[in-house]
Amino acid sequence: MEKEVTIYDIAKILEISPATVSRALNDHPAINSKTKVLISAKAMEMGYRSNTFASNLRRRSTNTLGVIVPRLNSHFMSAVLAGMEQEANESGYNLLISQSLESAKKEISNAKTMFNSRVDGLMASVAYDTETFEHFENFIKKGVPVLFFDRIIDHPKCSGVAIDNVLAGYEVTSHLISQGCRRIMHVTGNLKRNVYSGRLKGFQNAVLEHGLKLDDDLVVVTDLSQEAGKFVAQRISEMEFQPDGIFISNDLCAVTCMKALKEKGYLIPDDIAVVGFNNDPVSQVIEPNLTTVYYPGQQMGEVAVRSLINHLKGTQPIDVSETIILRSELIIRGSSTKMAVSY
Amino acid sequence: MEKEVTIYDIAKILEISPATVSRALNDHPAINSKTKVLISAKAMEMGYRSNTFASNLRRRSTNTLGVIVPRLNSHFMSAVLAGMEQEANESGYNLLISQSLESAKKEISNAKTMFNSRVDGLMASVAYDTETFEHFENFIKKGVPVLFFDRIIDHPKCSGVAIDNVLAGYEVTSHLISQGCRRIMHVTGNLKRNVYSGRLKGFQNAVLEHGLKLDDDLVVVTDLSQEAGKFVAQRISEMEFQPDGIFISNDLCAVTCMKALKEKGYLIPDDIAVVGFNNDPVSQVIEPNLTTVYYPGQQMGEVAVRSLINHLKGTQPIDVSETIILRSELIIRGSSTKMAVSY
Repeated sequence: MEKEVTIYDIAKILEISPATVSRALNDHPAINSKTKVLISAKAMEMGYRSNTFASNLRRRSTNTLGVIVPRLNSHFMSAVLAGMEQEANESGYNLLISQSLESAKKEISNAKTMFNSRVDGLMASVAYDTETFEHFENFIKKGVPVLFFDRIIDHPKCSGVAIDNVLAGYEVTSHLISQGCRRIMHVTGNLKRNVYSGRLKGFQNAVLEHGLKLDDDLVVVTDLSQEAGKFVAQRISEMEFQPDGIFISNDLCAVTCMKALKEKGYLIPDDIAVVGFNNDPVSQVIEPNLTTVYYPGQQMGEVAVRSLINHLKGTQPIDVSETIILRSELIIRGSSTKMAVSY
Repeated sequence: MEKEVTIYDIAKILEISPATVSRALNDHPAINSKTKVLISAKAMEMGYRSNTFASNLRRRSTNTLGVIVPRLNSHFMSAVLAGMEQEANESGYNLLISQSLESAKKEISNAKTMFNSRVDGLMASVAYDTETFEHFENFIKKGVPVLFFDRIIDHPKCSGVAIDNVLAGYEVTSHLISQGCRRIMHVTGNLKRNVYSGRLKGFQNAVLEHGLKLDDDLVVVTDLSQEAGKFVAQRISEMEFQPDGIFISNDLCAVTCMKALKEKGYLIPDDIAVVGFNNDPVSQVIEPNLTTVYYPGQQMGEVAVRSLINHLKGTQPIDVSETIILRSELIIRGSSTKMAVSY
């Protein structure tokens, strides 16, 4: 590899002092703009790289934020990452991104890598089966802020960004009840995760509040995959007392379930009303269009990065944890509209 | 911030030599495994961070690969990134990810950041309006390999990973012709980009080969957004000589166009057959299901990273450029099946 170009090399070629070169490249007011342009042009021509890397080592800062997500290839997560990248980029931070593939083991290994890469801050949405907090403990000890988003771990030293999952679950279920549903099934993910346990809680609150019966048979824990959607449709068709409404915590899973139910001859929403979650593009393509909950992914990414950078800049004290709750929104469409809705 | 824990601190506490600590942490065979476990546990407890960062500075390597994509929030790109992350992670590399938001200006700024962060290699899929190569030139000069994927720039010093876009466009168009279409519209993106110019070329080849007429009115350049899909449907409805088939270079755009055409009373595929591109989940939800081209996104990501790492390890010489062509596949579904298909 070629030798690194230094400010001394540039100074020598331009026959000026290294101090002038350094000042020009750092946009120092003592250097006139013509000289700055000249020096910058020469620096670029010679392939000079600013000493961010070395100065980061001195400052013990890398201007890099780490992100660990369960999966990169989900519509919701790609919206979150788009928001994070935009906000980070505008603030001069880079994003180091990794995925746990829903495995706690890989998440622990990802955290270790992030730790050794000396990220200035870490953002994480935890895997399905994460049980411990240990792999985040080292960051806290070093004063590196950890922020959880979407799937959060409640920890006194960590901030979080989430929606009110209990409220969202309550709103979905209340809507189904307002449409005449009396026997509602809830299809959810691993209840260790706040997003799923919260929505279940909201579901249960709504059912009880309206004087309906909670039935264990009507809560189905799955991995919310497309296969799970088919499985649920099959299970429903085999039930003696079938539900008249379903609330599924993921749009792709809900759409696959709807397709399978339609193939089995069920009318949507007349026989069974269906509601999903996330407002994925598929929700507006399935017929009838899927009622769902708008989840502000891009905004969640922006807020997470902004909050973390404020911590780093000292605008927010680093050891005060807070949970930022973003607004979700029920979007009512044809898949659940059994009668004229009045709110 | 707390003082960094060193091997000397660990040695002092355990009352052993720093050399033993260093060897144990580097898994040296001279140290027995019981001692290794003891030392590793203490190191973890004390919050020791391996000196990757400092040693990277010495080795002038960061074990980090940079990625610049047009947009993070697209189904195709999230599949590519999932493949890249998996492959990079398995090889001990980190991914620094940024998005150009389809702007050459932001792409240039992203490239500069990647350059100053001293990525070991760069992967890029270029923005809609990128015209120059200059911002990648500095990497080449430094011996940092640059690999383009999907939207590639043909450059003697850079490798690329792509599909055969000419072939894919040819196959789609030939299929439409085999279904009886005689007046086929092609909706595409900015023709500066290889992916779009290639598919157009394939489209033209098929049209000419089958003795049909090329008509400028039937090639529509858009940004392939969902709005563009609605615009195309409106334009078709206003045409005197309407097409009997459409090939749209993006599934989300195609699905929106299909929905708008259906609302206007067109029968799909009888009045107009439709084919998309990418095999996005929406293609299996729209009715009739959308014929499309399977684009191996995850595989493209894996191959790009593997190829770049092989360059870095010297398995492949660093200045030999190559273009790896992955297989795409036409998936025939109801939106284009006017008659029994025989291949």
